[in-house]
Amino acid sequence: MYRIGIDLGGTFIKGGIVRNKTDIIYKTKIETPQSHTPGDTCEAINELVTMLRNNLATGPDECELIGIGSPGSVDAGDGIVMYSNNFGWERPVKLAEAISIPQNLPVKISNDANCAALGECLANNLDKGTYIVITLGTGVGSGIITDGRIYEGAHPGAIEMGHMMIRYGKRKCTCGMRGCFESYCSATGLIKTAVKNLKKGSGLYNAYKEKGQLDGKMITDLVRAGDNNAKKVFDRYLTDLGTGLTCICNVFRPDAVLLGGGVCESFDLMDDFLNDFVRNNIFGRENGFVPVIKKATTGNDAGIIGAANLAGDL
Amino acid sequence: MYRIGIDLGGTFIKGGIVRNKTDIIYKTKIETPQSHTPGDTCEAINELVTMLRNNLATGPDECELIGIGSPGSVDAGDGIVMYSNNFGWERPVKLAEAISIPQNLPVKISNDANCAALGECLANNLDKGTYIVITLGTGVGSGIITDGRIYEGAHPGAIEMGHMMIRYGKRKCTCGMRGCFESYCSATGLIKTAVKNLKKGSGLYNAYKEKGQLDGKMITDLVRAGDNNAKKVFDRYLTDLGTGLTCICNVFRPDAVLLGGGVCESFDLMDDFLNDFVRNNIFGRENGFVPVIKKATTGNDAGIIGAANLAGDL
Repeated sequence: MYRIGIDLGGTFIKGGIVRNKTDIIYKTKIETPQSHTPGDTCEAINELVTMLRNNLATGPDECELIGIGSPGSVDAGDGIVMYSNNFGWERPVKLAEAISIPQNLPVKISNDANCAALGECLANNLDKGTYIVITLGTGVGSGIITDGRIYEGAHPGAIEMGHMMIRYGKRKCTCGMRGCFESYCSATGLIKTAVKNLKKGSGLYNAYKEKGQLDGKMITDLVRAGDNNAKKVFDRYLTDLGTGLTCICNVFRPDAVLLGGGVCESFDLMDDFLNDFVRNNIFGRENGFVPVIKKATTGNDAGIIGAANLAGDL
Repeated sequence: MYRIGIDLGGTFIKGGIVRNKTDIIYKTKIETPQSHTPGDTCEAINELVTMLRNNLATGPDECELIGIGSPGSVDAGDGIVMYSNNFGWERPVKLAEAISIPQNLPVKISNDANCAALGECLANNLDKGTYIVITLGTGVGSGIITDGRIYEGAHPGAIEMGHMMIRYGKRKCTCGMRGCFESYCSATGLIKTAVKNLKKGSGLYNAYKEKGQLDGKMITDLVRAGDNNAKKVFDRYLTDLGTGLTCICNVFRPDAVLLGGGVCESFDLMDDFLNDFVRNNIFGRENGFVPVIKKATTGNDAGIIGAANLAGDL
């Protein structure tokens, strides 16, 4: 038997057929309907699931379960997306039911960052212990996995570690607050820090003037090239990131924190600083357990793998 | 059968005989040996336990278990205090064993704030759901209870919510970092904010000049008396407290947060502000589940009750 994992994103809906826990034997994606309405979105997911099922060599009935990772605050128990900022869903959407009824299959859902965290752990055989996966992308996604299971917190909207405030009242965050971890440590946050701190004549300044914008890779490339302006910006970013990671470790004290997202392509520039920062600043320091900060390695497939494993072992 | 709960503090070791989960039928306390060495401390705990057992009407063998709440980073599974800042224990202390062997009884241990949180929940029949208990005292203690059980996090030193940084790099904290929730929102933090913001001629200023110091009650009494300086200080305190509570709710999204400690004698001055602050600033706002902020009611007995219940239901 196989399972289907769906990763619902703002631009694409990605789906895969998964067996033996982490083997994606076929995957594809479709564009997310830009109306973003619950009706259009569910119709598109159903279309994608049907395509995937029809691709099963042994026929569509060989699928035993569909798992979906959705942005927003998810009631995993009842299969309802309570609220999704990205999709503009301000009322509960019965996502599991909307797929389960037409597909006549059980459907499990969770937050997309939770699914990515679960997929990352399973793909790396981290099925014993507690791991936190932080994705540094447009926002800061977070999930916590204990013994191969998602810790959902108590109510939908928990595990939003990106919205811990590390500099209360300072930089505006998309959530409406100021000073959130996400507002500094997402890729967007890094770029914002760079644009605010351009020094005329620097490599960073010239790159910005030439392209009219910056991205994470331009910044880390300039750090490698020895540009002082880029280095100062990146040091500031790493300090903010280390601060957030220290807070997270003081709350959960996991075995490890795995960092994903485009910025972490340059994890070699981050590794020593972040591990030293956490070791030197965690409550109790070397007298306590110091979690290791590592690079997440599974990339975009993590969401599909995690979603396919929402109901436990395959 | 009865259990003994011990609350190990820097000044006193409190102990009680507990039955039917939350009934303390006898309690007493002894002074904590000021050497604070592991040997002296364990000897004093043993002495207190023996006193308590000798007070059991049906004889010392009617005790089935001893529970101990200890300051510091506790390995609850192995019964070891890994590190205690307050006691200057920088190496692991096998606390459970040091009591279990002479008493010939099973001993369970946990962090003191965890025990207080568990006791608070059990005493209020909050044995379904997830509750966070925050104690605003010399420091900021925290515990999280789900369905009547302590959530210990992954490794000793977790659930140190007082050491989430809300204003990175700002006020020095006892943990060595700057800007921790505890450095602003402990009773000590409130007093520090007051002393730093005295306005000559105000009631607060005059009170400080007269007594040479301030305490939490002096500040809240002046808020009630309409002193503007005290009010501004307390508003700033409540904003910091609301910030930390919002971070905690974004991470765990519990059913409720219960606030204890001396400052909360004036919870009537805090209630509306804190609940409004969390409702207006939590991720997703009114579209998500908004935890309620309430006053903890069990006071000093919570630690004893929680410790006596470390191994589950009585």
